[in-house]
Amino acid sequence: MSIDTLKIRRVGIDTYHENVAYLNRDCSIYRAEGFQALSKIQVSANGCKLLAVVNVVDDNSIVHPGELGLSEQAFKYLHVDEGVLVTVNHAEPPKSMDAVRRKINGERLDQADFNDIANDIVETRYSKMEMAAFLVATGQNNLDRDELLYLTQAMLQSGERMDWHEPLVADKHCIGGIPGNRTSMLVVPIVAAHGMLIPKTSSRAITSPAGTADTMEVLSHVNLTPEQMLDIVRQERGCLAWGGTAKLAPVDDLLISVERPLGIDSQGQMVASILSKKLAAGSTHLIVDIPVGPTAKVRHMRQALALRKLFEFVGDRLNIHLEVMITDGRQPIGLGIGPVLEARDVMKVLNNSPDAPADLRQKSLQLAGRIIEFDPDVRGGQGYAIARDILESGRACEKMKSIIKTQGEKEIDLQPGKLCHQVCADREGVVTHIDNFQTAKIARIAGAPMDKKAGVDLFKKLGDKVTKGEPLFRIHAEFPADFNFAKKLAQQNSGYSIGDEEQVFKPLITF
Amino acid sequence: MSIDTLKIRRVGIDTYHENVAYLNRDCSIYRAEGFQALSKIQVSANGCKLLAVVNVVDDNSIVHPGELGLSEQAFKYLHVDEGVLVTVNHAEPPKSMDAVRRKINGERLDQADFNDIANDIVETRYSKMEMAAFLVATGQNNLDRDELLYLTQAMLQSGERMDWHEPLVADKHCIGGIPGNRTSMLVVPIVAAHGMLIPKTSSRAITSPAGTADTMEVLSHVNLTPEQMLDIVRQERGCLAWGGTAKLAPVDDLLISVERPLGIDSQGQMVASILSKKLAAGSTHLIVDIPVGPTAKVRHMRQALALRKLFEFVGDRLNIHLEVMITDGRQPIGLGIGPVLEARDVMKVLNNSPDAPADLRQKSLQLAGRIIEFDPDVRGGQGYAIARDILESGRACEKMKSIIKTQGEKEIDLQPGKLCHQVCADREGVVTHIDNFQTAKIARIAGAPMDKKAGVDLFKKLGDKVTKGEPLFRIHAEFPADFNFAKKLAQQNSGYSIGDEEQVFKPLITF
Repeated sequence: MSIDTLKIRRVGIDTYHENVAYLNRDCSIYRAEGFQALSKIQVSANGCKLLAVVNVVDDNSIVHPGELGLSEQAFKYLHVDEGVLVTVNHAEPPKSMDAVRRKINGERLDQADFNDIANDIVETRYSKMEMAAFLVATGQNNLDRDELLYLTQAMLQSGERMDWHEPLVADKHCIGGIPGNRTSMLVVPIVAAHGMLIPKTSSRAITSPAGTADTMEVLSHVNLTPEQMLDIVRQERGCLAWGGTAKLAPVDDLLISVERPLGIDSQGQMVASILSKKLAAGSTHLIVDIPVGPTAKVRHMRQALALRKLFEFVGDRLNIHLEVMITDGRQPIGLGIGPVLEARDVMKVLNNSPDAPADLRQKSLQLAGRIIEFDPDVRGGQGYAIARDILESGRACEKMKSIIKTQGEKEIDLQPGKLCHQVCADREGVVTHIDNFQTAKIARIAGAPMDKKAGVDLFKKLGDKVTKGEPLFRIHAEFPADFNFAKKLAQQNSGYSIGDEEQVFKPLITF
Repeated sequence: MSIDTLKIRRVGIDTYHENVAYLNRDCSIYRAEGFQALSKIQVSANGCKLLAVVNVVDDNSIVHPGELGLSEQAFKYLHVDEGVLVTVNHAEPPKSMDAVRRKINGERLDQADFNDIANDIVETRYSKMEMAAFLVATGQNNLDRDELLYLTQAMLQSGERMDWHEPLVADKHCIGGIPGNRTSMLVVPIVAAHGMLIPKTSSRAITSPAGTADTMEVLSHVNLTPEQMLDIVRQERGCLAWGGTAKLAPVDDLLISVERPLGIDSQGQMVASILSKKLAAGSTHLIVDIPVGPTAKVRHMRQALALRKLFEFVGDRLNIHLEVMITDGRQPIGLGIGPVLEARDVMKVLNNSPDAPADLRQKSLQLAGRIIEFDPDVRGGQGYAIARDILESGRACEKMKSIIKTQGEKEIDLQPGKLCHQVCADREGVVTHIDNFQTAKIARIAGAPMDKKAGVDLFKKLGDKVTKGEPLFRIHAEFPADFNFAKKLAQQNSGYSIGDEEQVFKPLITF
């Protein structure tokens, strides 16, 4: 056994997209080669190579001096059994880090550079620090439009690509940030009922209290394999699935896992992320929803327009028919925030209930109308009326029930969490502001989306009159600890401002 | 026991300046609060608070569901015993990350921003990713001179500051990158023999085959407490200590631990790093050595001049008398590379041996001469002659022996590693280039600086004539694995170029 051979040991630590190798401090290789903490090593076994960041271990029960511990990710990647002998070398840093350093120094990168970077990231050759360096170097203002196009293309090519074998595959996407904004669950049944193909994949909540996948999961299964999705869409013309099972633009997922804890959110990366995912999902026609408001992701009209141009520039060059809708993002959409409460709102709209939230209904019809106008057989300007007709006739509701059944119906329970607390107005007046962030945060701390029944139910929206002591919203939770955290948070800041009629924040755009 | 209480457990993993908390996947808190991998939690115990990155564990032998595992760093930081109950909360990201995000968006930061960032980094509130984001955001071209001044000041204020209670505290610093460049070990005894105060702290090698601390350690102890240093300097007027024991500009050490694996190296950060350390060490007069050459850190004269201006700008405003010397960085200095071989060269110069490396002697005398001219009693232009006189008279050698004895003499063994391999010229001609990087890499792979006796001994320098088959250098190693790695590397690329007289790379500056 040569000095550079170690026995593989699986270490049950989830290091989340980063390969970590645990080396005992007394390991001869660690000593002899001068591996330093945070330096990377190359592990070779069975012709497979893995790059991993070194963590030094002083506890023999985790790894012995003769062992090489691998985190769950690294162990899976290497595809060998425990106890197998591996050789260990100094790792050269991923070659494409040269391009990242050039970018840091202000140079412009080309398509080949972005392809190399995407490839190294997918092959998990980048550490979290290296990904952070790439994200900051390509962040706000640092990518020109062509570089953004290259990045999108590189992300697209990093994974698989679906092909629906139809000339028109419709999709919609909202850039996010508005609680309760569950329009997809209305747009999909309306558009599918019209006969157009709309195989919608959605994410779960990342920092929000509910994603479309979380909310749809209240009604049906959403973890569909690409094959199941194909069958469902063949039958229903639409679906509402979680996008995580298909390997679409995997670089995007890896970058997001670093972006999120860093709180970095550049417009360029958002465009590349959305368009690479949509193109990989096989979409040919896409409506992008950009909500604008003081507590939305996009706060000014000029910023929304700049973002629209970026989407159009990249979309046109990557051959997707793309239209941007700039929408009112001043406050949450609908009344419920949290999976069960949002599912309730969606079902009310589908059932044409008199107490269905008007804003959710209206926005969904506008989006669906725009998509329906992608249909060459629809006369310009008729989309909205067609969408409304599909909804009012009950055909959208039937389509939704049919999709739910095909995806696998769940025992539906739309009763929100039993622990309730009402937050009331501290003065008389009119609701002048509702803070999207704070409302989302309260719902999240109450347990959403992990606890489907947790969340916030709004009673008042912008412009509504309130009397002193009148309830503004109700917190729902399932667990006392979460409930108390959420109550405390709402006490500090309810997210609501009450003032006079003329102080109501006006929409930045007219609808 | 409330739901948010866990028992502390020490996990013997060295996560190197990053606090990691290990939570069992079945831990009720992990489930209820929706902590996500890579998100940060706040751990509170005994009035002490700690921020740590979450790693999820699936192995009960590492942490039980009722325990909170802490990496060595985190455990030390929290100062509580194992088994103590702690509460756990969602951590807010460090407040100063707002400033980092503003910097990413192209804004200018002020002194308060940099102070907040430095403070959060010292309090280990930053993850590695966040530090990487800060480093890239403030990297090449992204800081103006005033921001660089603010950063230096913030780094300086992050730690302790030494005060020697003398008006003139001399120091020298080389920006690095030149193997064998051990001038400090000659400058200190010469300057101290002249009677000036020169309490030199040095680093260990980070990416090089030897730092001054590693080489001095061949001769004497270097891990001195600040108190020991004070005593030694009071007696000898100088010392050669490792700088790691004093808490000088600790932010610098933390940033370097991320900079190094990323391979990021911005001039601004270099200036802030060096000057904050020197000011913290109490230096009042400083010579900065900037070697220029095709394989040095600084490759062009214009770059050296720009760097000089940066040093001068910040130095002048922080009240340190600073002079920059631009030196010849075309090749290694001296003949030996690696702690023992470099110590041998230094002792030869001190002993005025006829075979002492002339370049090491000459450069050390120039640096020492410039420092001696800081002495108000020395006539301008006399420094070099005084330095040479101190060296030739043997007073420098006596002073060095005295410093070694006071610091704690070691049993000195200047015999290099027993495993030897000579690398020979493959053609007749003249040495036209010697690659600093490659030469350093061979010495490092041979085992330096961990193995003091490992390294490379050069026989030929730039401009030397060689016949075919004549030895260029010899590799020394102690361990067969290292020896074989180093031989293989030298075979791929010896770092030497042999050509014709007129191809010898000319110095970029004249000396």
